[in-house]
Parts: sequence; C-alpha cells; structure tokens
Amino acid sequence: MRLHLSTWPEIEAYLKSRAEVIVPIGSTEQHGPTGLIGTDALTAEMVAEGVGENTETLVGPTINIGMAVHHAAFPGSITLRPSTLIAYIGDYVNTLSAHGFRRFFFINGHGGNIASVNAAFYEIYAGYAAAAGAASERSNRPEPRCVLANWWECEQVKTLSRELFGGREGSHATPSEVAMTWYRFPQHVKSAHLDPPLAPAGRFFGAADYRSRFPDGRIGSDPSLATPEKGKQIYDAAVAGMTQAFKAFREAA
Amino acid sequence: MRLHLSTWPEIEAYLKSRAEVIVPIGSTEQHGPTGLIGTDALTAEMVAEGVGENTETLVGPTINIGMAVHHAAFPGSITLRPSTLIAYIGDYVNTLSAHGFRRFFFINGHGGNIASVNAAFYEIYAGYAAAAGAASERSNRPEPRCVLANWWECEQVKTLSRELFGGREGSHATPSEVAMTWYRFPQHVKSAHLDPPLAPAGRFFGAADYRSRFPDGRIGSDPSLATPEKGKQIYDAAVAGMTQAFKAFREAA
Amino acid sequence: MRLHLSTWPEIEAYLKSRAEVIVPIGSTEQHGPTGLIGTDALTAEMVAEGVGENTETLVGPTINIGMAVHHAAFPGSITLRPSTLIAYIGDYVNTLSAHGFRRFFFINGHGGNIASVNAAFYEIYAGYAAAAGAASERSNRPEPRCVLANWWECEQVKTLSRELFGGREGSHATPSEVAMTWYRFPQHVKSAHLDPPLAPAGRFFGAADYRSRFPDGRIGSDPSLATPEKGKQIYDAAVAGMTQAFKAFREAA
Amino acid sequence: MRLHLSTWPEIEAYLKSRAEVIVPIGSTEQHGPTGLIGTDALTAEMVAEGVGENTETLVGPTINIGMAVHHAAFPGSITLRPSTLIAYIGDYVNTLSAHGFRRFFFINGHGGNIASVNAAFYEIYAGYAAAAGAASERSNRPEPRCVLANWWECEQVKTLSRELFGGREGSHATPSEVAMTWYRFPQHVKSAHLDPPLAPAGRFFGAADYRSRFPDGRIGSDPSLATPEKGKQIYDAAVAGMTQAFKAFREAA
Amino acid sequence: MRLHLSTWPEIEAYLKSRAEVIVPIGSTEQHGPTGLIGTDALTAEMVAEGVGENTETLVGPTINIGMAVHHAAFPGSITLRPSTLIAYIGDYVNTLSAHGFRRFFFINGHGGNIASVNAAFYEIYAGYAAAAGAASERSNRPEPRCVLANWWECEQVKTLSRELFGGREGSHATPSEVAMTWYRFPQHVKSAHLDPPLAPAGRFFGAADYRSRFPDGRIGSDPSLATPEKGKQIYDAAVAGMTQAFKAFREAA
Amino acid sequence: MRLHLSTWPEIEAYLKSRAEVIVPIGSTEQHGPTGLIGTDALTAEMVAEGVGENTETLVGPTINIGMAVHHAAFPGSITLRPSTLIAYIGDYVNTLSAHGFRRFFFINGHGGNIASVNAAFYEIYAGYAAAAGAASERSNRPEPRCVLANWWECEQVKTLSRELFGGREGSHATPSEVAMTWYRFPQHVKSAHLDPPLAPAGRFFGAADYRSRFPDGRIGSDPSLATPEKGKQIYDAAVAGMTQAFKAFREAA
Repeated sequence: MRLHLSTWPEIEAYLKSRAEVIVPIGSTEQHGPTGLIGTDALTAEMVAEGVGENTETLVGPTINIGMAVHHAAFPGSITLRPSTLIAYIGDYVNTLSAHGFRRFFFINGHGGNIASVNAAFYEIYAGYAAAAGAASERSNRPEPRCVLANWWECEQVKTLSRELFGGREGSHATPSEVAMTWYRFPQHVKSAHLDPPLAPAGRFFGAADYRSRFPDGRIGSDPSLATPEKGKQIYDAAVAGMTQAFKAFREAA
Repeated sequence: MRLHLSTWPEIEAYLKSRAEVIVPIGSTEQHGPTGLIGTDALTAEMVAEGVGENTETLVGPTINIGMAVHHAAFPGSITLRPSTLIAYIGDYVNTLSAHGFRRFFFINGHGGNIASVNAAFYEIYAGYAAAAGAASERSNRPEPRCVLANWWECEQVKTLSRELFGGREGSHATPSEVAMTWYRFPQHVKSAHLDPPLAPAGRFFGAADYRSRFPDGRIGSDPSLATPEKGKQIYDAAVAGMTQAFKAFREAA
Repeated sequence: MRLHLSTWPEIEAYLKSRAEVIVPIGSTEQHGPTGLIGTDALTAEMVAEGVGENTETLVGPTINIGMAVHHAAFPGSITLRPSTLIAYIGDYVNTLSAHGFRRFFFINGHGGNIASVNAAFYEIYAGYAAAAGAASERSNRPEPRCVLANWWECEQVKTLSRELFGGREGSHATPSEVAMTWYRFPQHVKSAHLDPPLAPAGRFFGAADYRSRFPDGRIGSDPSLATPEKGKQIYDAAVAGMTQAFKAFREAA
Repeated sequence: MRLHLSTWPEIEAYLKSRAEVIVPIGSTEQHGPTGLIGTDALTAEMVAEGVGENTETLVGPTINIGMAVHHAAFPGSITLRPSTLIAYIGDYVNTLSAHGFRRFFFINGHGGNIASVNAAFYEIYAGYAAAAGAASERSNRPEPRCVLANWWECEQVKTLSRELFGGREGSHATPSEVAMTWYRFPQHVKSAHLDPPLAPAGRFFGAADYRSRFPDGRIGSDPSLATPEKGKQIYDAAVAGMTQAFKAFREAA
Repeated sequence: MRLHLSTWPEIEAYLKSRAEVIVPIGSTEQHGPTGLIGTDALTAEMVAEGVGENTETLVGPTINIGMAVHHAAFPGSITLRPSTLIAYIGDYVNTLSAHGFRRFFFINGHGGNIASVNAAFYEIYAGYAAAAGAASERSNRPEPRCVLANWWECEQVKTLSRELFGGREGSHATPSEVAMTWYRFPQHVKSAHLDPPLAPAGRFFGAADYRSRFPDGRIGSDPSLATPEKGKQIYDAAVAGMTQAFKAFREAA
Repeated sequence: MRLHLSTWPEIEAYLKSRAEVIVPIGSTEQHGPTGLIGTDALTAEMVAEGVGENTETLVGPTINIGMAVHHAAFPGSITLRPSTLIAYIGDYVNTLSAHGFRRFFFINGHGGNIASVNAAFYEIYAGYAAAAGAASERSNRPEPRCVLANWWECEQVKTLSRELFGGREGSHATPSEVAMTWYRFPQHVKSAHLDPPLAPAGRFFGAADYRSRFPDGRIGSDPSLATPEKGKQIYDAAVAGMTQAFKAFREAA
C-alpha cells in the first residue's frame, strides 16, 4: 500500500488501527561506470514495497535525493546539505505525526545518509521536548518514534553477499546493489570496462578528495559480478531481513 | 532519459552538447475522495517523461513532496514548509549547476508550489550575485536559468479540459488530473460518492480554514467525470503544450 | 489611520471592533533612468493610505525593501533574499496576530515580491498548523488570514493605463507607476533621454542576465509618457480598485 | 538626498566620489499613552535626513521595524526577532556593498536595536572573512565598515535634555523623543492622563515581565513635559551631534 | 558547585530551593604576544567559580568560544558567527529552563560577546512570547531571566586597574586579564618583546581591518605590567564586584 | 599543548610544520545516580590531552556541550539541537582552516554526538565544494579533513573493559567512563544506592521515552564497579588506542 496511490479517506481508515509508516530513503549519486545514479533510491523503494506487502504497512513517498556531498564531483550526482535533509525529514515526519502516525521505519539505501537522518530524528525529538516544556504536563501529542534500517546490513544480505561475491562486494557501487537494480530494471543493465576490476578501498573526506582516491567512483567493489538473477536473490534476502527488523521495531517502539 | 536510470559517464557525455534538465515537481496531498494523494507528482512525472522523450532531454529525479500546508488537515498529506522547499530546490539546482547544467525546466503539477518554487529560483540567483560580488569580475561560473511551467495552464490542456469537462474542471482534484493518473495507473481507479457532485469553490487561507470550507478536499471540481480514456487525451495535450514551452525556454534562456 | 502615528491605547481601542490591518509593501530598486528607486514602496504606501481612509482601516508600517534580486546589478537597488523576506513578514504578522489582528491585506507595488510574500503566508500558516498539532484541539488562537493585492492589476488601473499609455505601459518602470510618484513628489520629477523610447521586453533570469537584456533597467515601457496629472488619475483608479478588493477580502476571510 | 527619491544613474554618479550611506533605523513599538508607536523610526529618519543635508550624504531607506521583543505585550508593537534583523541588515549592507558603498553610518532611534545591529555587523564581517579565506589573497572586494550611532546619546542631546527635562527624561517614551515627533507631526500630538506622572524605572527581561513592571509602557519618563518647541531644540541638537559623529566616522573608517 | 561535577540527583535537589545558575562565557582569540588565547574564557571561569562559592550557586559549563570575528586574522583565534552563538545560548538556556532554572547570570570575559549575547537573550524571550501567544493565557512555564555581567567593568576592578596600571590598561590584551591568567596558570607565563610597549588604540571594523590597525593584536594596552601577584588582586576585585552584581540580579529578577 | 594556553605567535610557529589539531568533544548530561554530568566532556578532554602529549599535537578548546536531546528530561542535562551543533562545529573548523589547519581529529566522549558531528563534517565539505564551484578550478584553499574517533570503541578499551567489568559495562553511565572521571577528580567520587545494580538495556527514542525506560538514567551498566584505580587503567588504554588512531589518520588524510 503506497501512500501516493491511496486516497485520504483510505489513510483515515488505515489510521484507525495502525500507526506505522515505512519511508524509503536513497540518494541520487554516481555508482561507478555501470551502476545507475538512482541505485540507492531504487533499492530502498523496492525493499520498502516488499516489506510493506509482507506486513500490510503503508509505504510513504520515496526520498530519492539524500546526503551525497562526497559524490558531488561526479556529473549527475545531486546532494542535499545535511541541514537541508534534516529540515526535509522533519517536515515529512511532523506532518504525518499530526495525523496520528507514530512509528516511522526508514528503509535506507545509502550509507551517506546515516548521520544526517539520525541527526534529523533528534532534531524532531528536540521539537517535541520543547513543545512539551512550553505546554507543561498537558501536551497531548506523543513523540513520534523513528528508526533507520540499512537493508545491506541485515544478516540475510551480508551472508548472501559473502557467498555470491566473496571479498568483492566493497562498499560503494557494490555488486549487490547494482544487481538488485538490474533485476528490477533489466532494460537498464549497463556495461563498461572496469579498470581495475576490483576498485581501491579506503577512507575519504570531501568531494574533491573522494574523486582523487576513487577515479571511477567505486570503492572496493567489483560490480561486474552483478547479474539480474543474483539481484533477485539479494532482493529477497533484503526484504526478509527488513521485514524482521520492522517487526522488531513495531514491538519495541 | 532519466537521470536516476543513467550512469555518471552517460551524464558526462550528455553535458558535452547539452545543458538542459527537466525537473518534475509535484506534491503529496489529498485529492478528494477519489483522487490519489500522489496525483500532482505522478502527473508532473508523466508529462516530464513525455517531454524528455520528445526533445531527448534529461529528466531529473521527481520532487514528490511540495508545499501543501493548506492540505495539512487531511490525513496522509505531507507538506514542506516554504523555507524547506527553497533550501531543497537550491541544493538540487546548485549541485547540478556545478557540473555544467545551465537550464532548469521545472514541470509542475501543483499550484501550491508556484510561490515557493519561484522564491527558490531567486534565492539561487541571489547566491550567484553574491558570489559574483565577492570574486569581482572573474567569477567564471555563469548563473543557472530556471523556469517553472504548470502543465494544466498550457493552452492545449485548457482547451481540451473545457471541451471534456465544461465548467466542472474546478481547481483542486480536477477531472483532468485525476483522469491522467487513472490512465497511467488503471489498477488504482477509485470510486466514492461525491456529495455534492460539484464541489464548492472560493478562496482559502490556512489548513484549518481550508478543511472547513472544502470538507472532502475538492475545490470546484467534479472528478466523477474522469476516465482513463480522457486521461490519455489530457496527457497528450499536456505533453504537447509542455514540449512547446520547453522549446521556447531553450531558445530564450 | 497609520499605526506608526498612533498610540498603543488607540490600537487597543481599534481592536475592540476591528481585526484588519493594511500592509503596504514595495521595493527599493532601479526604475529606469527617470523612475525613483523607491517607486514601488511609494506607490504601495500612497494607495494603502487611500484605502485606509476610505475604509477607516489601520495601515501598518510600509515594507520598503522587497525581493529585487534581479535588479541587483544596478547601483542603489537593495534586495532581501526570499528567505529574509519570509522571516520578516512572519515576524510582522505573528506579532500583530498575538494582539488580535486576524486579517492582513497587503497592498503590493512590486511584481518581484509576489512569490516570496505568498511563500511567507504559507510559512506562517505552517506555524499555526504545527502549534495546533502540538496543543491538540485546544489551541485557542485562530490562524491569521493574509492576502496580497497588486494595485497595478486591478481592472480600474488596467483599463485606465491602456487608455492613457496604449501599448507603452510595459512591465517595469512603467509610465503608470512613475506618474504616480511624480503626482505625489512633484519636486522629484526626473528627466533623461530614453533610448530607445520604448524599452525591450521579454523574460529574464538572474541579476547579470537582467542587466544584459535591459541595459537601462526598463522592461517594455515608455515612462516619458508619465505626467503628474496622469499620476493622479492612476492613483485614483488604484485606490478605487484596491478599496473594492479590500472589501471583498474582509467579506471572505 | 534620499536613495528612494533618486534614480539609479544618480546613484551611479554619487558613487564616483563617495562611498558613504546613512541608514536610519528605528522601531515600531508602544511609547506610552501619548507617544507615537513609530517614534523611534520617525526620530531616526528626521535626524538622518538632517545629517544627510548637512554633509551631502545619501540617506538609505528607513528601517522602521526593529528589535522590540520586550514591548510585544502592548497592542500595535511589532518586533523582529534578533535573527531576522541580523539577516535583514546583512542583505541591506551586502547589496549596497556590491555597488561600491563602503561606509555605513546607522543612525539609531531605539536602544533595543543596539545588540542585534552590532551582532549584524559582525555577521557581515564574518562573511567577508570567509570569502577572503576561500579566495585566498585575491579577494578584491574590501570589507564594508559599519557603525551604529544613537542620537539620544550624543553630548549635545544629553546636555539639552538635562536642561529641559531635569531628571524626568527617563529611558523609554522620553519627553525628548516624544517632543521631537510632535515638532515634526503637530497634527498627531496626543494627550492622556499620565499616572503616575513620572513612570517607574528599573531593569526588565521579557515581554510579560516588561508589561508587569511598566503598566503604561513608559520607563522612568514624564512625557507630559514634551512640546513641539522643545522637540525642535532636541532635533537641532541631535542633528548637530550626529553630524559630528558622522564626520568622525568618515575620517576613521 | 559546578554542574559538570555534579550528578543529576544533586541538581534535582538544588532546584528545590534555587533557580539561579551562573554561566561563564569567554572567547578563544589572540591576546597579543604574551596573552593566552584562552584568556577570556579562563578569567570568566575563574570569576564565576569565585562567585559560585561566595553565594553557593551552581556554575554551568563554560562557554569557551565566543564571537571573535574581528580577531579571525590571527592564527589560533576561533570565532562563532553571531547567529551561531545566538542559537547556542538559546539551546543552553532553554534546556535548563525546562528543568526549573529561571535566573541566568552570565559572567563575561570578552567585550566582543556583548552584542551577540544580548541578542540571544531577546531571541529566547521572543520564543516565550510566541509560545505564550500560541497557548493563550495558559502557558504555564514562566520566562527565564538572563543578564550579562562583564567582570572588567565593575567598579572594584576599574578602580584597582587604574591604580595598578594607570593609563596603560587599554582595551584588549590588557594587563588586568593577562595578569589574572598568570595568577592561575603560573606555568604558562609568557614573555615577548612588546613593540611599542603601549599598543595603539582606536576603533576597528572587520578582521582584516583589525589586523592592519593592531599588528600584534593588542589595543591600547601594555601587558608587560602584568604579574601573577597583581593578577591575584584583580581576581579578588572581580569576584567581589561580580558577587555584588549577582546578588542585585537575584533581588531584581 | 593546549590552544587556549598558547599565544598566537606560538600557533603561527606551530603551523609552519604542522596542520593537525585534536578537538575534544563531550556532552553535559545525566550519567546516572553516581556519574558526573560532565563525564563525557571530562573523559574526552583527558584522553585528548594524553594524545596531544604523546604526539606533540595541539589540542583545541573542549566542546563541552553536545547533542543530548534524549537526556533532556533529567535535571541538569543540557543539549544542543543537531542543527546548532552542526553550525558550531562548522564555525570551529572553518575558522581554524583559514589559518592553515587541515586535519581535525575529534576525540569523542559521547555516542549521541556521532550522527550530528558526522553531519557537521559533510556540511563543511559541502561549503568547500560550493566555493570550489563558484571560483572554478582556481580555489586555492584545500578542503579540511575531519574525523571523529570514539575513545570507548578502540580495541584497547574494549578488551580492558570486558576484563574489568565483564558484562556489566552497558552503554550509558558505564563503569569505564565513571571510573575515568573518578581517577582524575577523586574529590568528586559520588555514591548512591543503585537499584537494580545492573540497569536495564534496550533501544530508546525521544527524551520522555528515554526517561520512562531508564528511570535513573543508566543503560545496561553497573557503575558501582568503578574505582579510581580502574579509571587509571581505562585512561591509559584509551590514550594508547586514540594515539594509534590519530597516527593512522595523519597518515591517511
């Protein structure tokens, strides 16, 4: 059930028994010579829809641009500053919270988002603390509860990736994420000569630094191992892992 | 050609001869008892893709949440504050501008965005004026040029809408926009009793005021007239009109 | 009745029966070789005072600097960034709203303000929606209601301008606005050789772009047609038109 | 010479030999039972125009709303938050600075502005320091230089006030400032029973606190002593004092 | 009693009978060839701890970076923009205010902080005014009350400084403040040739301007007169003066 | 070598051969019934000074207030909103970066800071990317490089903690951090009855939620195991671990 494909009376009805919403969040950034610029948003959305179906939970609009400052030296990458992303997520959560949504489960496709999104959650909580203070004990709108879950970090995906790609998964433009988009968008499978086949790894800082260390954009990965078939396997593992994480969140929050 | 389905070397190649990008922008807000909450984003994206194909122009990620404060009293509507949307569009344009994009053609699906998006364009221009000032005559990055085009206001659509819906088009949850989404998403055609069939019209102010004036969310419209077939007609008219507007912009900017 | 020429007990008394305030808003920007830099603020203030007298309504302090980024390449133009103007109008409205003012009728002298001022209104409404949310159903301060009315767009002025200036009104440094300031400030009538007499027209983007397209600052206008006498006529038409618009707003809001 | 009554070519000409601008800044706030709400803006503007004439210096638009949070509990007072005023002054100075203005002499009519305006100056300087940093030694736009001068603190006014009003000047709604506005706006002389004739004095904190300590808005003053004639004397003293201060600034900056 | 050396139950107990907190605020900026970069924070903290002991009042964390834009051209100076300092102080005061602290006595070691800190206080008060407005008469959290006291301006210190240093105190990198840090940190007494012994005085504007006027950083001072012994005397005077000021504040607020 | 105990000529000299600075960052927040509110700042500062001595590296002013929104319901906790901390760190780094510092090694004492501090780093990098863009290829100030290192996560500390405290370390108000402060501040050793001895563990969301789950503030810890002697051991391990991490950073950045 996608929010954008629903009517408001359907949402009103949903809120009578439910208070959860799943929010896919990705990025629009280079993913090496063969990865799609939208990889992180596409994978997050695919997984979110899968979890939404498994658990009959509403899935909100996909946040398709994230915090990708370090990719900004590659054409076509778009980035929000952390402060913009914090404001954006605040508006997203606060609007829905006013309608009765209480539990926000963000499914994330991009490591670069982690810091800013978690900062956003505390910016939101700070607002509730302040409101509570101002209105003393009688504030009658409870705090929302937010969590960010990275699909590539669940046990199911990590195990499968090791099995499929061995030590060639890397951390950016990975065969796992590239494969998953190819499974869903087979008409957009790209090919390019990867040189070296296994990209260099290591830490990085700003955008200029990133590009000088990782000239074709990949970090530690060999996406030539990606195939649509493996993408299907990774997708299934990610949906299974995130479904489990969502259920744990629903219990705890 | 969608940015999110491209690789960065493809964008690098595109920029050798082109400096245009089309940006679909919509909203996530109630559209009456039968309209999809994502109507404005879906229609903007459909039209943008059509114009992109017609003119071989890159289409950036869809901005699917807009300025919808006045709809905030209906469950499921999400809104950015104008200030957040201004920051968001600034980051979007400034990142791409650094890569060589110069002409940004926003195709808009939501009247409520008009003020904030135009304000955003001037916030961006102000930054370039300041940068130019600081670095004197030698700033070597030219100002980007941005325009917002509302698909429902082109002559082609206005004429067709009058023909198809007479005086029952209205201004929110219109048969035109509802029909266009049903044409694209026939599995999400909704039905509901509309009472009265033709919604009341008139001006409005904040969110509480809006809901009290327009209890089911529609303004002056009768979306029961919408059908997927008419949606196809409206879509074709919108793509034709926006293609023409895009070409005029490319000439002038 | 001007706010700045009143005492606070007079305002307290006014609020016992009234909740309206008229706010003149203009700009400080080049108006071609013969137009005053303060044209937009001066005309807005003149008209606002006329409407205030006609309707016995309080007129607040004139906002004399507006959003004029596109004029920034001409010496003496001052501009607020849209974000600054949004904050400014927010403070203006929110302070008075706390005293009991509910209906804010902005009389505008500058097209460049339209987007930012309307964005400001929604930024204000968003604050009330949030406050309402935090305090649940018991927020006891109603939303303010704001509207922006452009004096040059009322029927009375448009008809008269066509009659007086034919197709030579243009859209910046127009004979109408220049004439109106000369009527009020006859000691500041300026003269200069206008070359060409009728300025070029067309769209524009940022400040550098504007100056390159419109070298003396005018757009499509021939202000040599302006005289103090015609200024009086335009002024009367604008006051009549805005009085009517104000009354309609008072009914509707 | 007022900026708003000039044309841009006149300003261009002025900048060939001059780099100074005088900026009147006041407030819109209660001034006791008989003082005008616009007192601080009116007096600042009067004095600025006098200094402008004495020294043939351009006078910019009057900043008529200032930082008056502590007066916010009195109807008709309008206040900017300090952060808004800082942004506003930044835009004012930075725009003019790009045209070649270098020395900004603010003539202030309101004690409450002092902190925020001086903070604004350093916010501006910080921007230049940052720009200088980014562009290394080759930033070719010099820092602007700003100063705030309070007309009521010059020796000439302090001496005369002691002479005319003895210990009954006080610090808000003073006979000096009230008299000065009555001199200029004799049709707006107000009368009211002042009880007690000499208002209480002392420190204060926020808006609620202020109103509870100073119920009619005055602090330590007896504005019943004000007359238009004394206003003329105070005005002359203020113009003399500020003219001297302006000349000293022009030397030093 | 320092907050950072207490436990939360100790603070809970303190709040049962007290609502005061002392906040030391300084700066991290050049203090001439022999003064420590932390001088202003160190002296503020020393004095605050002395006053805290004298009056059994809680002393909060020292704000060790302040508004020092004008010192930014000297290596090792750190500055907050005024807007950052305003946000920082707002968070500091608002958090503690929610726990029941009402009276905030800032002991300041740096003249450059005065404007921004006072602006911060009004930004805080504005928030309470707004909150009060939104919740009508029933906001049940009282406004905090804040004051800034500059230790070097109390009568005790001024008298002693005249006695010890005559006309060689100056206004930056003064013998008083340098001596006080040497008294507390005798292992960090520095020596350097001061040329000229008495630094130039005068006004200044931005960072580049400051450095060009005062090449070694001092203003009007001769810190070669500083000794740890005199530092002890100044310290005692400052603690006495600030204790008196604190008691007056506690009475008045 | 502490920045605040140095003079600016000493920093100028340091910068001739070095570009590193260590920045201690902690928090001011409840640490259970026996832990000091300043624990995180005190431990970060201790460790930073140790690493500074080991490696002859400058240590900047301690950031003693961090992001502690979730602790805000306990008296005496102070928190910055994430957005404030981001601005604060930006000013800190950008000022020093203008002097030639390039490598910023933050030693962190508080898990709650991680997201906001990393977001701050990218906000800084975004500024450099923008500046680079505006000035094209000729921006001559290189990007700073920042890293955050959490002392409690280095292998040395984790091993020792397991040895000393077994499974009773927990994640807030841990025996390790409490012990370290007691080692340095033996006069501030506190005692209280801990009930239960081992605090509950688990995830949490906002401030109200945190307090309801962890009534005395601890998470999963038993700080009754802390002693000054063990604190010395933990301190030594932390300094060893962070020294190693600093050296690795210096190589890589």
